[in-house]
Amino acid sequence: MAESWSFLDTFESNFRPLVVVELAKGTKKETIEWFTKRIVDKKANGGAQLLVKPLVTEKGEENIYLVGASHLRLLLGAETVGLVKECNDNSMRTFTYSSRKTFRDFADDNHNFLTMAECQYIIKHELENLRAKDEKMIPGYPQAKLYPGKSIVRRLLTSGILVQIFPLHDREELKKLRHSWYGRVKVGYQPLDEIRCYFGETIALYFGFLEYFTFALVPMAVIGIPYYVFAWEDYDKYVMFATFNLLWSTVILEVWKRICAIVTYRWGTLLMKRQFEEPRPGFHGVLGINPVTGREEPVYSSIKRQIRIYLVSLPFVCLCLYFSLYVMMIYFDLEQWALDYHEENESNFSSLMLFVPSIIYAVVIEIMNRIYRYAAEFLTSWGKKVVYSSSLNTNNKYFYLQFNFLNCFASLFYIAFVLFDMKLLRQSLATLLITSQILNQFAESLLPYWLQKRHKKRMKKRMSSLKTDTDLTLVEQINLEKEMGTYFGTFDDYLELFLQFGYVSLFSCVYPLAAVFAVLNNITEIYSDALKMCRVYKRPFAEPTANIGVWQLAFETMSVISVVTNCILIGMSPQVNALFPDSKMDLILTVALVEHLLLAIKFIMAFVIPDKPRDIQIKLAKLEFESLEALKQQIFLLTISVLTNDSIESGGDHKR
Amino acid sequence: MAESWSFLDTFESNFRPLVVVELAKGTKKETIEWFTKRIVDKKANGGAQLLVKPLVTEKGEENIYLVGASHLRLLLGAETVGLVKECNDNSMRTFTYSSRKTFRDFADDNHNFLTMAECQYIIKHELENLRAKDEKMIPGYPQAKLYPGKSIVRRLLTSGILVQIFPLHDREELKKLRHSWYGRVKVGYQPLDEIRCYFGETIALYFGFLEYFTFALVPMAVIGIPYYVFAWEDYDKYVMFATFNLLWSTVILEVWKRICAIVTYRWGTLLMKRQFEEPRPGFHGVLGINPVTGREEPVYSSIKRQIRIYLVSLPFVCLCLYFSLYVMMIYFDLEQWALDYHEENESNFSSLMLFVPSIIYAVVIEIMNRIYRYAAEFLTSWGKKVVYSSSLNTNNKYFYLQFNFLNCFASLFYIAFVLFDMKLLRQSLATLLITSQILNQFAESLLPYWLQKRHKKRMKKRMSSLKTDTDLTLVEQINLEKEMGTYFGTFDDYLELFLQFGYVSLFSCVYPLAAVFAVLNNITEIYSDALKMCRVYKRPFAEPTANIGVWQLAFETMSVISVVTNCILIGMSPQVNALFPDSKMDLILTVALVEHLLLAIKFIMAFVIPDKPRDIQIKLAKLEFESLEALKQQIFLLTISVLTNDSIESGGDHKR
Repeated sequence: MAESWSFLDTFESNFRPLVVVELAKGTKKETIEWFTKRIVDKKANGGAQLLVKPLVTEKGEENIYLVGASHLRLLLGAETVGLVKECNDNSMRTFTYSSRKTFRDFADDNHNFLTMAECQYIIKHELENLRAKDEKMIPGYPQAKLYPGKSIVRRLLTSGILVQIFPLHDREELKKLRHSWYGRVKVGYQPLDEIRCYFGETIALYFGFLEYFTFALVPMAVIGIPYYVFAWEDYDKYVMFATFNLLWSTVILEVWKRICAIVTYRWGTLLMKRQFEEPRPGFHGVLGINPVTGREEPVYSSIKRQIRIYLVSLPFVCLCLYFSLYVMMIYFDLEQWALDYHEENESNFSSLMLFVPSIIYAVVIEIMNRIYRYAAEFLTSWGKKVVYSSSLNTNNKYFYLQFNFLNCFASLFYIAFVLFDMKLLRQSLATLLITSQILNQFAESLLPYWLQKRHKKRMKKRMSSLKTDTDLTLVEQINLEKEMGTYFGTFDDYLELFLQFGYVSLFSCVYPLAAVFAVLNNITEIYSDALKMCRVYKRPFAEPTANIGVWQLAFETMSVISVVTNCILIGMSPQVNALFPDSKMDLILTVALVEHLLLAIKFIMAFVIPDKPRDIQIKLAKLEFESLEALKQQIFLLTISVLTNDSIESGGDHKR
Repeated sequence: MAESWSFLDTFESNFRPLVVVELAKGTKKETIEWFTKRIVDKKANGGAQLLVKPLVTEKGEENIYLVGASHLRLLLGAETVGLVKECNDNSMRTFTYSSRKTFRDFADDNHNFLTMAECQYIIKHELENLRAKDEKMIPGYPQAKLYPGKSIVRRLLTSGILVQIFPLHDREELKKLRHSWYGRVKVGYQPLDEIRCYFGETIALYFGFLEYFTFALVPMAVIGIPYYVFAWEDYDKYVMFATFNLLWSTVILEVWKRICAIVTYRWGTLLMKRQFEEPRPGFHGVLGINPVTGREEPVYSSIKRQIRIYLVSLPFVCLCLYFSLYVMMIYFDLEQWALDYHEENESNFSSLMLFVPSIIYAVVIEIMNRIYRYAAEFLTSWGKKVVYSSSLNTNNKYFYLQFNFLNCFASLFYIAFVLFDMKLLRQSLATLLITSQILNQFAESLLPYWLQKRHKKRMKKRMSSLKTDTDLTLVEQINLEKEMGTYFGTFDDYLELFLQFGYVSLFSCVYPLAAVFAVLNNITEIYSDALKMCRVYKRPFAEPTANIGVWQLAFETMSVISVVTNCILIGMSPQVNALFPDSKMDLILTVALVEHLLLAIKFIMAFVIPDKPRDIQIKLAKLEFESLEALKQQIFLLTISVLTNDSIESGGDHKR
């Protein structure tokens, strides 16, 4: 059976499989025929004009299809998705097929002009934009209704006919990438450009941010170490450390915006216009006219969404919060119990026991976060039968973020500002931070890696061949990859960093060592995340992005909150209290004054530091200038034609 | 002599005088010839291609020239300055001559397509862009050196040869505008679109803001009245008033952004690209390449400017501040003296005497502000021989703003937060507010109006004719107008509103009646400013603008500061203190908590309310979309030509 494939390989060598489409086993023939015809059909007929080949497995089943596209088709698709590439004059421009010759490294026979990730992104975009025309239902499945303009792929997924669509790994490229990324022991930066070529901008930008953030934490960590080593307890040193931290965190967030602009300008995504894209094809809604592009596409009912949020999501979030606070109270009881135990029978064992409640609590928090997440996903998909992608929608993401924040920090806030127990705060903070880091690394990367490895071995045994990775046939590769887990985007990874930033900055003056642990964790995080991307998950589709989006705001908000918490903490410290022996009032007023000054400095700094470096600003302005000039030019051409047509009429008018 | 003009009037009726150029008396003939030749000369020869006519006065002097332009020249100029006009399909587009037919109300014989203000703006732009070519000096004045690329008009102004350039009033239009603006008693909005047509966008937007701000203050004033009438002193009512004020001020500032976007979209200035304009032609600097447009133009030395700021301006500002604080101390001495006097011999007279120090102080503040301003102007122009325009440069404006702020509010802050004297604060606030308002209205509008009227009468007497305004000949009109004062932009008007906003919001919980006075003042302010614009000053050149610029930020900052001051004031009130009889600490903590909550609400509101209404957002996105599509189109055309030229070479390449 494998011959049928190698036959294709030899005789149609221009077909390069890029994306795998897995249908349910036993899908009706007419459905398959209709679907593949739509994929192959001409654009003019409402097709995607791509190439499709069946993959015949050893069992003779025909439920996996490989999708590719001709070089020309991919170039036209690059224009459709609005890809931005570098021109011969070093400027970045939106790619168009007609202007292809002006782009760097373009040649009609250079099939590497578009990276594989870009090709796969284009194919995904084209597949998802296959829309129902006059079909009333999916052929062969009368119960699966179709409405004009709705995404076919989405409907196939929700009705369970389509199992998944995923891009293929390029084993050669992946091996190279693995080697330069984490394959050798080295000191230096990650190969961000290579990561971007292989996994797309969103993931590369995450790794860029992770790396930047780690470097940015190093000064905090370095300054934090002596506080631990010499057990400094002077208030002035703590004030200095906290002040440095607060200003530093503002600077690093502002500088990141600049670095992000530089990097995404180089990648072309800073110039990509996302607002003109058609709405997510996986989208429920009736057809309407997009007010911007004037194209017909599904529009969005905002009121319906609002109602769902307020009637379903809000009560659910409140319930979860209540539960989370209840667990926190149990934790405090446990903590008290451990303390009593330690006081009664003091020993090495009992002092270790002091950490047990925090560790248990940290584990419970992680579990609760996951339960909340699955429940939220269930609620989102509730009434929609099947979940297309397990990633949360935007609103749920906000709720999830807030829930995580409260879940992780509620106990710390309670200890700090209700119990006023700095010793317990330090101990709890340290235990929570370290436990959650270890748990995360384990749950996110190492466990799936181990599972994946075991599965691979079993697969290979079943295929009764003991080849190495690179010797696998395409069939074997696809069979391995389709069983791999799906990577649901960078949300969880950013969330982890966000919570870590909270641990480091919110109580930085109580536990300066937090930054050290954060740096250590992030160094291993880079490697475990890289491992996760390369070995554990299916290759994700590339997603162009120009910035880290809402996370920038989230980190900035956290840094504002941390100004407030740190000022209060310092104000509460006995050393500072000793400075104001007579009047608590003066103390509080001083603290409030310092806090306002710090906040003012923060805002002025954020205002003064430009978000984009000057040369990027100039390049963007230049492009805008050109595009305005071009608009004038086009109106000019338009006018010529208008004038030519009108001249007779207007001539007549004038004579009247 | 007047016949020579009427001769022109009859035989060259297409020449419409728009701008007046006044040269110094006794300017050498060759200079005049050279300058008028440059104005009339073809664009290709480095001229402005405008029309010039000498105005021969009754004394036979020839030092005033009228500048006009042909209809076609103005349309081409409109394209150069990037004017945005409404198209036939109701969208706003950048005007180009080639696409002129697509614009609403365009007809080749409709000379009202461009408003007079727009025509004058175009002529001003063209005159200021007359640049020296190979001339080494101004002909006839060997000491007035010229450098290639430097503005000729600027050089003529600095060397005193050119006295002034100003646009002519249109007496018919002005009469109409006056009538609909303030000529009849009416309740309603100002004719903003007419103001914009006559005076340009910057001035119209100021009046729009003044009107909006007055309306926005009405709710505050209405709520404030009962506090005064019933002498409410309950803390909860004050808290309510202050809270309402703080949130209201956030709302009005956010809503203004939206209204501003709507208005300037209609005027076309929201779409006008200011960053691509050539630098202010009055600009010192060497020639360089503009990185955005790629055109050769004078560039700017930033370091030189920085040094000047730090070495000259900063010490000067510090000195002024010191002086201002010194005066404040004298005021407090006076205040104390008045209080002592009142206590010693209590009478009606002595209680009136209590207000005298505040009134004197208010007058002194106004005088100091003006002295500071003239000194700052002197410093700016120092080493530059002659001041071209008396308006301050940007940096000095910032300093001036801060100086005004401190000058006006330092004493109030001192009374509130050092002396803790709420009664004095209220009295001082009221006196300062009312005195400064009266002084401003008098000094800004009424005094100049009276002077202007007197001058006009004398002029008319001298011309020994007692005609009404509309019967004046052009010569007489110009002779009247050239003696009028020059309007130096909206800075002072905005500053007045800004300080008023400070009086209203910073201490709103102490003196709720401030808003009432502000509303009353603003209603008369609209009329006196309108009078000022129409009767007192020369017509100013129109200046396109899309928003109120830095004032938005200034008002927002003021509203943040007012949250802090009001929370402190409420916290200090005896009523609130009585609520926390046992612990001052609890009081302060509560106040701090409330303050943080209010600030958080403010920022969330500012974040949640979109800056532009949805339909404007869509229109802007649409335009951007079109301009990107146009860019693609242009690259396409470019490529065609490239491909045609390259086909032979590339064909050869392929064969190899």
